[in-house]
Amino acid sequence: MWGGQYSVPPADIMAEINASLGFDKALYAQDIAGSIAHAAMLGECGILTKEDSDGICKGLREILREMESGAFPWKPELEDIHMNIEARLTELIGEAAGRLHTARSRNDQVALDLRLYVRDAIGAIDAALLGLQHALLVRAEEHAATLMPGFTHLQPAQPVTLGHHLLAYVEMAGRDRARFADCWARLNESPLGAAALAGTSFPIDRHRTAELLGFERPMANSLDAVGSRDFALEFLADVAICATHLSRLGEEFVLWSGPLGFIRFSDGFSTGSSIMPQKRNPDAAELVRAKAARTAGNLVQLLGVIKALPLAYNKDMQEDKEPVFDSAQTLLLALRASSGMVADFTANIDAMQAAAGAAYSTATDLADWLVRVLNLPFRHAHHVTARIVKLASDKKIPLEKLSLSEMQSVEPCITQDAFSVLSPQASAASRTSFGGTAPENVRAQIAAWKEKLA
Amino acid sequence: MWGGQYSVPPADIMAEINASLGFDKALYAQDIAGSIAHAAMLGECGILTKEDSDGICKGLREILREMESGAFPWKPELEDIHMNIEARLTELIGEAAGRLHTARSRNDQVALDLRLYVRDAIGAIDAALLGLQHALLVRAEEHAATLMPGFTHLQPAQPVTLGHHLLAYVEMAGRDRARFADCWARLNESPLGAAALAGTSFPIDRHRTAELLGFERPMANSLDAVGSRDFALEFLADVAICATHLSRLGEEFVLWSGPLGFIRFSDGFSTGSSIMPQKRNPDAAELVRAKAARTAGNLVQLLGVIKALPLAYNKDMQEDKEPVFDSAQTLLLALRASSGMVADFTANIDAMQAAAGAAYSTATDLADWLVRVLNLPFRHAHHVTARIVKLASDKKIPLEKLSLSEMQSVEPCITQDAFSVLSPQASAASRTSFGGTAPENVRAQIAAWKEKLA
Amino acid sequence: MWGGQYSVPPADIMAEINASLGFDKALYAQDIAGSIAHAAMLGECGILTKEDSDGICKGLREILREMESGAFPWKPELEDIHMNIEARLTELIGEAAGRLHTARSRNDQVALDLRLYVRDAIGAIDAALLGLQHALLVRAEEHAATLMPGFTHLQPAQPVTLGHHLLAYVEMAGRDRARFADCWARLNESPLGAAALAGTSFPIDRHRTAELLGFERPMANSLDAVGSRDFALEFLADVAICATHLSRLGEEFVLWSGPLGFIRFSDGFSTGSSIMPQKRNPDAAELVRAKAARTAGNLVQLLGVIKALPLAYNKDMQEDKEPVFDSAQTLLLALRASSGMVADFTANIDAMQAAAGAAYSTATDLADWLVRVLNLPFRHAHHVTARIVKLASDKKIPLEKLSLSEMQSVEPCITQDAFSVLSPQASAASRTSFGGTAPENVRAQIAAWKEKLA
Amino acid sequence: MWGGQYSVPPADIMAEINASLGFDKALYAQDIAGSIAHAAMLGECGILTKEDSDGICKGLREILREMESGAFPWKPELEDIHMNIEARLTELIGEAAGRLHTARSRNDQVALDLRLYVRDAIGAIDAALLGLQHALLVRAEEHAATLMPGFTHLQPAQPVTLGHHLLAYVEMAGRDRARFADCWARLNESPLGAAALAGTSFPIDRHRTAELLGFERPMANSLDAVGSRDFALEFLADVAICATHLSRLGEEFVLWSGPLGFIRFSDGFSTGSSIMPQKRNPDAAELVRAKAARTAGNLVQLLGVIKALPLAYNKDMQEDKEPVFDSAQTLLLALRASSGMVADFTANIDAMQAAAGAAYSTATDLADWLVRVLNLPFRHAHHVTARIVKLASDKKIPLEKLSLSEMQSVEPCITQDAFSVLSPQASAASRTSFGGTAPENVRAQIAAWKEKLA
Repeated sequence: MWGGQYSVPPADIMAEINASLGFDKALYAQDIAGSIAHAAMLGECGILTKEDSDGICKGLREILREMESGAFPWKPELEDIHMNIEARLTELIGEAAGRLHTARSRNDQVALDLRLYVRDAIGAIDAALLGLQHALLVRAEEHAATLMPGFTHLQPAQPVTLGHHLLAYVEMAGRDRARFADCWARLNESPLGAAALAGTSFPIDRHRTAELLGFERPMANSLDAVGSRDFALEFLADVAICATHLSRLGEEFVLWSGPLGFIRFSDGFSTGSSIMPQKRNPDAAELVRAKAARTAGNLVQLLGVIKALPLAYNKDMQEDKEPVFDSAQTLLLALRASSGMVADFTANIDAMQAAAGAAYSTATDLADWLVRVLNLPFRHAHHVTARIVKLASDKKIPLEKLSLSEMQSVEPCITQDAFSVLSPQASAASRTSFGGTAPENVRAQIAAWKEKLA
Repeated sequence: MWGGQYSVPPADIMAEINASLGFDKALYAQDIAGSIAHAAMLGECGILTKEDSDGICKGLREILREMESGAFPWKPELEDIHMNIEARLTELIGEAAGRLHTARSRNDQVALDLRLYVRDAIGAIDAALLGLQHALLVRAEEHAATLMPGFTHLQPAQPVTLGHHLLAYVEMAGRDRARFADCWARLNESPLGAAALAGTSFPIDRHRTAELLGFERPMANSLDAVGSRDFALEFLADVAICATHLSRLGEEFVLWSGPLGFIRFSDGFSTGSSIMPQKRNPDAAELVRAKAARTAGNLVQLLGVIKALPLAYNKDMQEDKEPVFDSAQTLLLALRASSGMVADFTANIDAMQAAAGAAYSTATDLADWLVRVLNLPFRHAHHVTARIVKLASDKKIPLEKLSLSEMQSVEPCITQDAFSVLSPQASAASRTSFGGTAPENVRAQIAAWKEKLA
Repeated sequence: MWGGQYSVPPADIMAEINASLGFDKALYAQDIAGSIAHAAMLGECGILTKEDSDGICKGLREILREMESGAFPWKPELEDIHMNIEARLTELIGEAAGRLHTARSRNDQVALDLRLYVRDAIGAIDAALLGLQHALLVRAEEHAATLMPGFTHLQPAQPVTLGHHLLAYVEMAGRDRARFADCWARLNESPLGAAALAGTSFPIDRHRTAELLGFERPMANSLDAVGSRDFALEFLADVAICATHLSRLGEEFVLWSGPLGFIRFSDGFSTGSSIMPQKRNPDAAELVRAKAARTAGNLVQLLGVIKALPLAYNKDMQEDKEPVFDSAQTLLLALRASSGMVADFTANIDAMQAAAGAAYSTATDLADWLVRVLNLPFRHAHHVTARIVKLASDKKIPLEKLSLSEMQSVEPCITQDAFSVLSPQASAASRTSFGGTAPENVRAQIAAWKEKLA
Repeated sequence: MWGGQYSVPPADIMAEINASLGFDKALYAQDIAGSIAHAAMLGECGILTKEDSDGICKGLREILREMESGAFPWKPELEDIHMNIEARLTELIGEAAGRLHTARSRNDQVALDLRLYVRDAIGAIDAALLGLQHALLVRAEEHAATLMPGFTHLQPAQPVTLGHHLLAYVEMAGRDRARFADCWARLNESPLGAAALAGTSFPIDRHRTAELLGFERPMANSLDAVGSRDFALEFLADVAICATHLSRLGEEFVLWSGPLGFIRFSDGFSTGSSIMPQKRNPDAAELVRAKAARTAGNLVQLLGVIKALPLAYNKDMQEDKEPVFDSAQTLLLALRASSGMVADFTANIDAMQAAAGAAYSTATDLADWLVRVLNLPFRHAHHVTARIVKLASDKKIPLEKLSLSEMQSVEPCITQDAFSVLSPQASAASRTSFGGTAPENVRAQIAAWKEKLA
């Protein structure tokens, strides 16, 4: 493979640690697309004859068909996807295959393949994120006014609506999509033609291959083109952040379908136990929760691989692929599972509403009433309310069951009007500040999102 | 602090683990700026009297002056920056201070502060990255045609120029700046007014506070506003990626000033040994190399903190600050040290040039000559060249010291003309493909960068 | 500092990035102890005069007193703890101070200091873990028979006792202690005398300094002694694992004091809200939960720093200290907070017991009855039970409210005796297999642990 | 699978995210061994008839044969290894197969399988580490006196011997083995019989299954048995630390075979380039270097998965397997590749020796001479030596080429005797302190290690 200076083959362990075919075959479509563009350009520039160029492209398309139909004769001993394709091309078209690697190196070739893969992965992820947004919007609209407790510290804090809560994830998914879009735009430069690391003396046209492959431009520095992997790091970071968002939704689904009793998953999204016949486990939610850690691990791996690597190419960079592949596939799986769960759950509206009004969740409304009506400074109003809460709490009754005179024992100026703010409905409806949970706000945000996504 | 329902103070260990003043005092300027904007808006909206609003703003400005002059009476027992400021405000202006927290919560306040901090940090980092780009361009221009070996696998691969090599880092820094700019734009939304998590019933104007604080808009969902930290995760990821780039430069400086002997740092950027009097250690380069791991650790920390947190606010999120502060400060330090080293080093041009031509670094040029002139398929040319290299290598002489007939013993059609491509100068000069290392390309790229940065 | 070959001082940024005094002053006691042992040995071996040796040791003890009393004149410009001490020693005893560094280097000195620090940290952590075990045992004994649901997938699975649940953490803490003990034993070798990296030609006695400092032996290879940090990595890993255990307890405390309503923390371990007067937030539990991520970040940092470092000492290794210090202090804080919470909580026994019997948590007991009494294969019994659960679930009644004939409609052979296994008390009491939750087992385990810890 | 309460099958995405057969089939041997022990014990205890017990064990052994011969009919729709085996057992032996799961749950079963896997992995790793130690000792003995520079900051510091350098890795490997041994001993407790999480009411004998499976004892708390994964975390940490050691060796092999020119790998451990015919790349060394990051990523993943998981079993824990499998296999590969490289390299003794004496590497020896013979305080001697180094450095000559009078111009008392310490041979030979690099020490250490490993 490496020509005349080598007289013995690699040691077994060397071949074993070096082989990448087991994972880099995932790049077959990208590798062929890149080679076709390269060959076409070589032909256009007169570096190859039209006949050779056409023959190579035709052979490569045949190989693509073979791979997609399962007919391709993989040869593990050829170690990687590039050599498998080149060797097969030689079988198919003969000596001209040997001209494909003109003005190219494995270094720019593999950098190209991985960029193309990440670009494709971002396309699929964006579609899956959009699907999740749609699924969330459908349920948010259905539950724009369904009360539930808003939590801080996993304790009821103030009433919100389920629609409002779900919209928070629409926002997160929106930023996730924007992050991936930025990553896409930044990586959308072609490394092809950087050759080994220094460019080439052949009169190639890198702008042409960039155009053929849908890149915005060729990369401007050949060392950077073959030696940089920040595009992969950025992708892995974007995946990890997005997966972290999903892990929060997963946690909430575990809590809601479990101790809080807010939702129930259908049989299709529940699993039983090998020993406990009564179980309805939210396995998908738990796995979505766990997968965030997996994507963080992948990011840590590649950050560790690239750290302190001198320019330009080092074999360490072969370890860039598996974390990228795994993070892409993991995120797609987690996104689809999340969308599935969002569409699947049945809300236990009564339980949510009851919880929304429990645990003194409208105490802030009382404090705000004291500020608004009695003009108490907020700090003072907060203190007064805390004492009223204690009064009710010691009696184990909700705020609205206190008598007016009991309230007045803490703050004499309180009037009957104060009771009007104590229901969770009133509380939620009053929060009309921009971004607040009032159902009218929620509906307006849903409309705005629908328009944006249309 | 929390009013009437609490009858005993926190346990000692509770107070100790809960206290954040030790680190969140770094947010003092952001906290005050946010409070001034909030109070001004409350006044404009008639929620506070003009008098109260003005009094609060005046008091806050006085506190800012006290903090910057060192006169502020910090009280550790008040646990965090917010309570220190509010308590001092009460001392300065009396009861009106208690009105500042109207329609606000610690939850939106602290989310605001951290966003403002990250925004400021990105500003400083961008300036430092620009400084690094300028420093690199100065040296790249000086060395646009200085030959050195381009490395793959840390072995000489093909000749490049030092200017070309330095430009690779200008490109990386350019993408780093773009990443930070994207992060800035994405986080530039105001959480203020989301209150605890549900919005507020006070008729506040969130667009106005957003405007006063330089935000593009208020965040559209109150739960998202107080509960999301993806902006901090994205920042930490951008820092880790940028620091990884610097770690590569650091590694190269260690190699270049050490075993390769390509550069020498001045006394100002060298350190000695407590025992070995001859040492000139590149400590700064090593520390820059190591710091990348530190920023990766910070990212892992926050990813781990946020994973699986249910909405909206949880105390875990107090652990978001230290990694953000540390990564920001670490990266600024590493950037300044890198710029310093770039400006400082003296290139050992002779050593670089000698290495550029050693180790058969122009073998590819010979292979390309065989393709171009003899029309061999590249694979064949590669094989022929490898055998010629072996011939020279067995004789322990460079390629150009082989006789023509020796070359012809491998490939009879080789002519004297082949020798013209074997010098490193010729090799580098021939790589004129876009992004290639030819000095004319390097100079063009420098000019393009200068224009872009102007 | 580095003698005659340096004519200009470090550049400002060089001095700034190089300075370590800000954090390595934490090593003052270890540094002084090491120097005293070294000087004493030099005296005993005749390398220093007894007078010089005694003078140095006396001066060092004086410095220790100054540091502990706050009287020590720290000089930031001296950059690190070692130079601060040596410079002060010179002030105190004159020229003899210059003899302390005979046969020693900063490299073995700092390796020694960090080993001593980790050894001390493990001592403190072990005591804190023992304290946690004691606290857990006290509560476990109190609640050896208090029923609660055992959870899988955060859903009630089978009844257990609170005592049994708490004992699980005693087991984890026990393994944590064993891990730290192993780490202690493995690192308890002295690097002192390895000098820069090659040993020394002075006739020192490394066994003697090892003995004076409480080490088992001197390290056997000088390059390893100055260049290895696996002891610090192992410590960081042990901390991260232990902190992960605590994070699980923290999560449970959040769930138990929140949605599950199983426990209540006193005012001393609860915090309120700046806006919501009713809140009783379990901040300490949340922070303990979050801190695990912090310790994981520290581990990632040092793994990243050490990866791919050639032997022996590199400046990167200066970055070993902060993660070690932070993980040690973080874990101690989390352990103390955990012990505090364990001792503090009040169990809501009624709520626990009610939950223990809900959600068909004794369905497995019915299945086991079918196996034991009717000799059904378990798989069959599981299936039968699942159908009975569905029957009850559709009627929204617990298993024990089904009539015998309803049960027999699924499996005709069921007898009245089956009802005897359906109470949570019976269920828990029946699990007498070794390690099972039967209260008698729990009490036996408590007794065994008490004896072990005595 | 889960019996009567489920009326519809899992949703496609649910089945997809839930399926583990793709990776947990690696546990087949462990799963079968565990089931055989369980069935045997059930028979011995009279919970199963002898006939059923024997039939199950026979069937399981048949399945093991099928799996090892490739004849086993895998059914992906059965999702995991456990159900594949149980379903096949039913096919083979009929209804009795349904009795195997008596007094057992998937929870204790899978915890058992993973413990058995880790135990086996540690066995293989220990053997590979021992192999590496042997390989290192062979080369160390060969090069006990071969001079090379000892490096700090990647610059020559003091002469050492190659044997001494290689022994440093023998020490590291020794501690790695001890770490794995501690992990093995700590995890060697049987979770089997903990059942779902609470133990069982069947009169099982957990000590017997523990004994049959080679465990030291059964785990003492059933919740801990099914819910803890610290054994896997510890294993992953031990792997990451060991892989970090190997990454350092990998880095050194890259440096030694590249810029330093100290060693050459044979064709069997070198790879060429697809474009540059002259290359001899140390791919295995680079990959070993990179793999450390992979193992760190695996550790981060599982730390993140387990963090904040409430007891006892959660589906998240299904994500424990892939990182464990990958780290085990990765480390074994890296160890074998490292041993291969150690055995393969040819030392360029002349280059090493020349480098050992260059760069003023014996300056410390001169300083020590000044201390020993002239009784200068070390600090003073260090300063004098630095000035002498500067004198030589300015003249671009080595120390030993200075004249005595030139030396005396810096320190008049220097005598001709000082020149005796300036050769690298003398320097290395003089470092006879315990653990120092003197060849006699190196040989003694080799002998000691050989005895220890015998």
